[in-house]
Amino acid sequence: MTDIRLTPLARSLPATVPFVGPETQERARGAVFDARLGANENVFGPSPRAIEAMAQAEQWMYGDPESAELRAALAAHHGCAAENIMVGEGIDGLLGYLVRLMVEPGDAVVTSAGAYPTFNYHVAGFGGTLHTVPYKGDFEDPDALFAKAAEVDAKLVYLANPDNPMGSHYSGADIANAMRSLPPRTLLVLDEAYVECAPEGTALPLPFDDPRVIRMRTFSKAYGLAGARVGYALGAADLINAFHKVRNHFGMNRAAQAGALAALEDHDYLAHVQQQIAQARDTIAAIARENGLVPLPSATNFVTIDCGRDAAFAKAVVDGLIDRGIFVRMPFVAPQNRCIRISCGTPQMLALLGRTLPAALADAEKS
Amino acid sequence: MTDIRLTPLARSLPATVPFVGPETQERARGAVFDARLGANENVFGPSPRAIEAMAQAEQWMYGDPESAELRAALAAHHGCAAENIMVGEGIDGLLGYLVRLMVEPGDAVVTSAGAYPTFNYHVAGFGGTLHTVPYKGDFEDPDALFAKAAEVDAKLVYLANPDNPMGSHYSGADIANAMRSLPPRTLLVLDEAYVECAPEGTALPLPFDDPRVIRMRTFSKAYGLAGARVGYALGAADLINAFHKVRNHFGMNRAAQAGALAALEDHDYLAHVQQQIAQARDTIAAIARENGLVPLPSATNFVTIDCGRDAAFAKAVVDGLIDRGIFVRMPFVAPQNRCIRISCGTPQMLALLGRTLPAALADAEKS
Repeated sequence: MTDIRLTPLARSLPATVPFVGPETQERARGAVFDARLGANENVFGPSPRAIEAMAQAEQWMYGDPESAELRAALAAHHGCAAENIMVGEGIDGLLGYLVRLMVEPGDAVVTSAGAYPTFNYHVAGFGGTLHTVPYKGDFEDPDALFAKAAEVDAKLVYLANPDNPMGSHYSGADIANAMRSLPPRTLLVLDEAYVECAPEGTALPLPFDDPRVIRMRTFSKAYGLAGARVGYALGAADLINAFHKVRNHFGMNRAAQAGALAALEDHDYLAHVQQQIAQARDTIAAIARENGLVPLPSATNFVTIDCGRDAAFAKAVVDGLIDRGIFVRMPFVAPQNRCIRISCGTPQMLALLGRTLPAALADAEKS
Repeated sequence: MTDIRLTPLARSLPATVPFVGPETQERARGAVFDARLGANENVFGPSPRAIEAMAQAEQWMYGDPESAELRAALAAHHGCAAENIMVGEGIDGLLGYLVRLMVEPGDAVVTSAGAYPTFNYHVAGFGGTLHTVPYKGDFEDPDALFAKAAEVDAKLVYLANPDNPMGSHYSGADIANAMRSLPPRTLLVLDEAYVECAPEGTALPLPFDDPRVIRMRTFSKAYGLAGARVGYALGAADLINAFHKVRNHFGMNRAAQAGALAALEDHDYLAHVQQQIAQARDTIAAIARENGLVPLPSATNFVTIDCGRDAAFAKAVVDGLIDRGIFVRMPFVAPQNRCIRISCGTPQMLALLGRTLPAALADAEKS
């Protein structure tokens, strides 16, 4: 074959990656990070029961393509039907399927400027036209998102609550109120990846079969199973059923299904982790203040810190931390990119952060 | 949202599944199978070193999106560059990405009637037009496949060597010879999922950067890691690089990457499993002959058995085995569907098969 006969759409796409992995940076610097605080992973790890369940799983067998046990447990947990739940290869995988189902070249999609890049990657990947609205302060702006969706007749509008990368949140009731102005032909993709780290009342208080919204949840954050790749979507049964048209039915790792099930059932461990996350947020905020920076309130497992200057300065701080062995990231888009973002770490990791940040800041001041 | 605004293509697709999972059948019958011999899983399991590596993996971290360690080991194993290798969520996942990259509505794709349904599922899922040629006896027919590809200007032509569901194989040299008639604008998708179960010389003996072909390999069969979901594609660097345009970069389970790496490095265990597979094939063949059936030669981890009658009879035999607690499957398309397909099992499982098959056959005779 002389030329690769890519589709015109594929030909137009860059070979890209929404995020550079920390391992890539470790290979480039020739050393592993001393503290891995950049990807909002859960350093406290999964429930020991999840670890045990994964170790016991017989990986010679394909996973159940229906994830039936996990879906049944999730249905009981949320008080909905299994038909309202689609388990998939992380929220990333589910977002890809959803965009594929609904977006073709020219279709309009709305998100906030600086929100989740992987969603944008999927929209571009299926030829959609992405429209953005700015954040309102450090918050996504549901009213502006839904107004833009009406203006461009968006098929999808993406909103994360709590928000990444800013850590801000609305009450679920506020989102439900704002949804009164959601255009009737637009589906709300409500990314609740961090909701287990947020105050009570943050989850959307509407029935799971409300056809206006699909909710995304994950075992990667509070449940500590980012490496296992287990997410799920909650939505109306006919929307959930549409995933069967395109999904990789045997794509779910068998041990991951078992691990997620065990993690879901270990309520005490989740409560313990939620407490550790809250403590870590306080510690990060204190470190920020000690260094003259402003920690933003967080309903997630990270704290976004306003460095009070421009993006170049924040970038210099991030680079200074990375050079000193601390993996962190920062928002992509102005004005959020005046900030850096620190994932909740163990007390040891955060002590290292506390010792390292002054030098990174001093270098950034000089640069 | 009143209606789900699926794309016209998505609207046209059925909500389907290429294979019903054995767990679904177990739930329907209210009991687990006594022998799981239908999905060509490797009952001998993965290397103990793979099990240990998966247990040690820290699943709170996302997997390396580059699968760099595994790709480096695979490159050394195959004597190619890491740039010739794409690791993905099983061959199923990789086939989906490949079809997405190259096939849009109306594009022609060629395969054998009765070959891998999941490939066909992906082609349909991206709107491709599937053209088929019949098997030639119990073999796929490369000459007919490539002639059809020329006739319809196919972007992709799929060929499995060894073949599933028939277990037959060609030497790699024969495939390379047949490729002289591969149309210059058609990419050969050579599925070598079972090649580690086949005689020496079955793998295609062409350089991995040959732009005419992309090879699919997996850790699901001889390496015993079906549940882990690790496959890889071998091909020219620019074709491999195109996967970065559409793949789910963080889709690989972290423990699965570690398990595959450990499995790859345990040569002794692979040799041991290959021996167990060969013995099991002989046992299945003997059981078939004892029951007056004809086992086909197999270069895989299953044996296809010619029941000597029509599809209805073979289906009755399959149902009789399933009813008696033995999970097996059969080919989908005539004339291959005169056969049933039995995966290699442990001696205990095959002893159960030997005790059960006469009754299943007797029932089928009566039906």
